Amino acid sequence: MSLLVVGSLALDTIETPFGKRERILGGSAVYFSYSASFFSPVRLVGVIGDDFPLNELEFFKARAIDLAGLTIEKGKTFSWHGKYVGDMGTAQTIAVHLNTFGTFKPKIPPAYRRSKYVFLANGSPVLQGSVLDQMKRPKLVVADTIDFWIKNEKKALLALIERIDGLIVNSDEVRQLTGMYHLVTASREILKWGPRMLIIKKGEHGALLVTKDDFFAVPGYPIETVRDPTGAGDSFAGGMMGYLAQTDDFAVKNLKKSLLYGNTIASFTIEDFGVERLKQVSYSQVIDRYRSLLAMMKV
Amino acid sequence: MSLLVVGSLALDTIETPFGKRERILGGSAVYFSYSASFFSPVRLVGVIGDDFPLNELEFFKARAIDLAGLTIEKGKTFSWHGKYVGDMGTAQTIAVHLNTFGTFKPKIPPAYRRSKYVFLANGSPVLQGSVLDQMKRPKLVVADTIDFWIKNEKKALLALIERIDGLIVNSDEVRQLTGMYHLVTASREILKWGPRMLIIKKGEHGALLVTKDDFFAVPGYPIETVRDPTGAGDSFAGGMMGYLAQTDDFAVKNLKKSLLYGNTIASFTIEDFGVERLKQVSYSQVIDRYRSLLAMMKV
Repeated sequence: MSLLVVGSLALDTIETPFGKRERILGGSAVYFSYSASFFSPVRLVGVIGDDFPLNELEFFKARAIDLAGLTIEKGKTFSWHGKYVGDMGTAQTIAVHLNTFGTFKPKIPPAYRRSKYVFLANGSPVLQGSVLDQMKRPKLVVADTIDFWIKNEKKALLALIERIDGLIVNSDEVRQLTGMYHLVTASREILKWGPRMLIIKKGEHGALLVTKDDFFAVPGYPIETVRDPTGAGDSFAGGMMGYLAQTDDFAVKNLKKSLLYGNTIASFTIEDFGVERLKQVSYSQVIDRYRSLLAMMKV
Repeated sequence: MSLLVVGSLALDTIETPFGKRERILGGSAVYFSYSASFFSPVRLVGVIGDDFPLNELEFFKARAIDLAGLTIEKGKTFSWHGKYVGDMGTAQTIAVHLNTFGTFKPKIPPAYRRSKYVFLANGSPVLQGSVLDQMKRPKLVVADTIDFWIKNEKKALLALIERIDGLIVNSDEVRQLTGMYHLVTASREILKWGPRMLIIKKGEHGALLVTKDDFFAVPGYPIETVRDPTGAGDSFAGGMMGYLAQTDDFAVKNLKKSLLYGNTIASFTIEDFGVERLKQVSYSQVIDRYRSLLAMMKV
């Protein structure tokens, strides 16, 4: 089934204890698309500046990532400079330049408006809502958000949450959103607002899926060498949504599988800088690791 | 099969955001015994002072916790005063009085020396070793340790690790012990030193089991209200070892189950102060929660 993502494309500078890379391909829509494209073609809506390397666009096309929704504007591409230290838990932002992304108003091409699966990458909930306004009867809409929007745009965010099927957040954000400490209680509260599922990302500890009747825990895949955690969340979302779009089945059993695929893809992403590892890995390597993850959970 | 534990009995004063309790029953051997006794009789070796409430001893006997190895000495029982704040991740120690426990030299009663399952609760690796010296051909010896011994008694600890079958630690301790950052690599290194299994406790995120050929992840059971995290680790060990002693089977499949039982029991412990919850809970409630935990992991 058709899968649409709206999010950022970026040229990132990233420092970790394993090295530094300058102006490499990044952004939520990029990590998402690369990850989802293992399972399903992807329609990408975003904006770049005229400094964006054109060979990267070729690579997108080779992965069945459709760029009809990509706008190239005069000026520079969104760029982020982040640094990870110690256990690389969270990045310090050294610099962020919104550039062309700062005035991005997503316009969904008519041919995309009937996309069945929609992922709204982290961004202003007003913008995320404006994407939904343009869509015609999507089957599954999943949105990502962060603490910034909970603090600064809570009303708009709550209005968005009412309109979506799935929300992806981390544990702290679940608590912040609800003012409730305990994850299960807090998650059930969010489900009352509209979504049919809540996906809680726990980094190296994996992820949780909460639905009205189910609670599912998937462990993190134990990586030998984490070189750059950037994009783990969007890769997770990409693997998950890509698999759902491929199978077009969101019975609980398949939702659970989709989380495992999400975790699998994210585990590859963090093995190297940017999307370097995702560019190398084969579909059969994905399936092998998915099976290892399954085996780790099997009693 | 016979199960022996050597560890502390204490009168703890505990403060958490949910209240304060003074001089309540605590200590590693206590949490372990209560937890293991759901599955198997327990032989307890430890020391208390003459201030220890005798009615608590009655309660032990009612749980098939054999006290022939319990020494009552003149003076006071070991006491610990701890305070948890915020997310209750780690306790601040307000006061610790070793009292009679300070000069504890575990003496294993002759009738206990052929115990098949042995748990060496956290303590000096020299003392832990002295317990092993007294045992006759135990079948499975598991030891707990903490960063203090890694820092201050590393040589003795490494000598102990060579002699045991299983080691229970947390992620940081695995890294500290090996000087290796990545958990899987570090765990395999420890297995080269002697133990056939390493159990990594991850608090609310569950636990990992690493053997030469297997890697198993069990999620934390999602508790609605954590009132007091004290004793979670020893309860985990107790549930695990109690189940292993009951079934006398340490094929990998059964080891995995034992971790699930350990997690299940620990999830009850932290729902109330001290062993209050463990005193109330029934075997069938344990089984119900074990099944829920299994279901949470099932794809």
